[in-house]
Amino acid sequence: MRPHVFVNVAMSADGKLSTKERRQVRISGDSDFRRVDLIKSQCDAIMVGIGTVLADDPSLTVKDVLLRKNRTDEGRDENPVRIVIDSRARTPVDADILHKGPGKRIIAVTGSADPAKTALLSQYAEIQVCGDERVRLSSFLEYLGTLGIRSLMVEGGGTLIGSLFAEGLVDELYTCIGNMIIGGKDAPTPADGEGFTNEADFPSLVLNSAEKIDKGILLHWTVQKKSDKS
Amino acid sequence: MRPHVFVNVAMSADGKLSTKERRQVRISGDSDFRRVDLIKSQCDAIMVGIGTVLADDPSLTVKDVLLRKNRTDEGRDENPVRIVIDSRARTPVDADILHKGPGKRIIAVTGSADPAKTALLSQYAEIQVCGDERVRLSSFLEYLGTLGIRSLMVEGGGTLIGSLFAEGLVDELYTCIGNMIIGGKDAPTPADGEGFTNEADFPSLVLNSAEKIDKGILLHWTVQKKSDKS
Repeated sequence: MRPHVFVNVAMSADGKLSTKERRQVRISGDSDFRRVDLIKSQCDAIMVGIGTVLADDPSLTVKDVLLRKNRTDEGRDENPVRIVIDSRARTPVDADILHKGPGKRIIAVTGSADPAKTALLSQYAEIQVCGDERVRLSSFLEYLGTLGIRSLMVEGGGTLIGSLFAEGLVDELYTCIGNMIIGGKDAPTPADGEGFTNEADFPSLVLNSAEKIDKGILLHWTVQKKSDKS
Repeated sequence: MRPHVFVNVAMSADGKLSTKERRQVRISGDSDFRRVDLIKSQCDAIMVGIGTVLADDPSLTVKDVLLRKNRTDEGRDENPVRIVIDSRARTPVDADILHKGPGKRIIAVTGSADPAKTALLSQYAEIQVCGDERVRLSSFLEYLGTLGIRSLMVEGGGTLIGSLFAEGLVDELYTCIGNMIIGGKDAPTPADGEGFTNEADFPSLVLNSAEKIDKGILLHWTVQKKSDKS
């Protein structure tokens, strides 16, 4: 059984994750930072796409020392399992995600990845080969389930999130909307990739809550299962 | 003095105005439809870009008969002045905006527009030549001010809105966020075009209100004037 998947993104009022050069910008504020750290500390694993690793070099560690202690008190690792979806094994060997903080890492690659590079990366992370050209997300999530991973947080980027929605693999979506316009037809958005063209295929959401946070607003949506749709 | 400019858009939870083919889809519901009709009926003019005319062929008329009557009781035309930003005069001669409902139309073109086409369009709309390649929005808005237009509603699309933000010509933004994912890196968003690359240039907004509407939420933002920013 695959984990429960929730996506967390911060976007500008016009729906952008960053500038068109993918330069990370501050969209939310301190309250949202603490909220994200809390939900991160509560999940079993956290996942990003290779684009996010290359653009932002995130460590994906839990930042608050008390939240880390809560985890270790429960017999868990300090940090959730950190996962990169990286078809061609482009994760830099010195990426922060591989070195900062204790805990398990998994890199999902495909048969098209360079074996020498995957061998290098395997010093720091478990390598899972899953698919020929693109990572088969559905199978990979099933694999995560076999490891006992029940809850999976997805932190981006837009391409990975778009693929997860395309395959019906998202259960919840948090969007923190910041008080700025970034603009740009080529700027990343919360769901990139091909997108849906048929209205009947659009994932349908239920708005659970909306609360002002920092200078923006946090929306929490649940994704309706296809079978629940009327 | 230019009119007060407010932008109104409906976007999916992932910040898309329509599918990548620009096919219009239902994002909001009946309550939002009535809200938009009301604010439309209260403004002096309503403006769209040529992309929206070509994709959706909107009439931009006030739909509710009582709202139209309110306008005529006040001695105004049934519909606000309808405006198309159309550098190369590509508005189809049979476009609904030129034929449906009474009221004045203005098409803003540039020196690069085909004179024969502008002559044809001038049978149905006032033609304003403003700029050489792209319509000079700032000058054109000043011109609208000289006509007594005090409030201008912008209904899209993303390219026009992006240009207005780029030139600091937006005062308010309403985003109605619908309960669906559309996805697609090439799908239109509320602010397309080049976008901002420098964080200091991002237009900064103030969230005035957030209210649930239909199955989504309506956010009302005010754009901070540059001089107001700390």
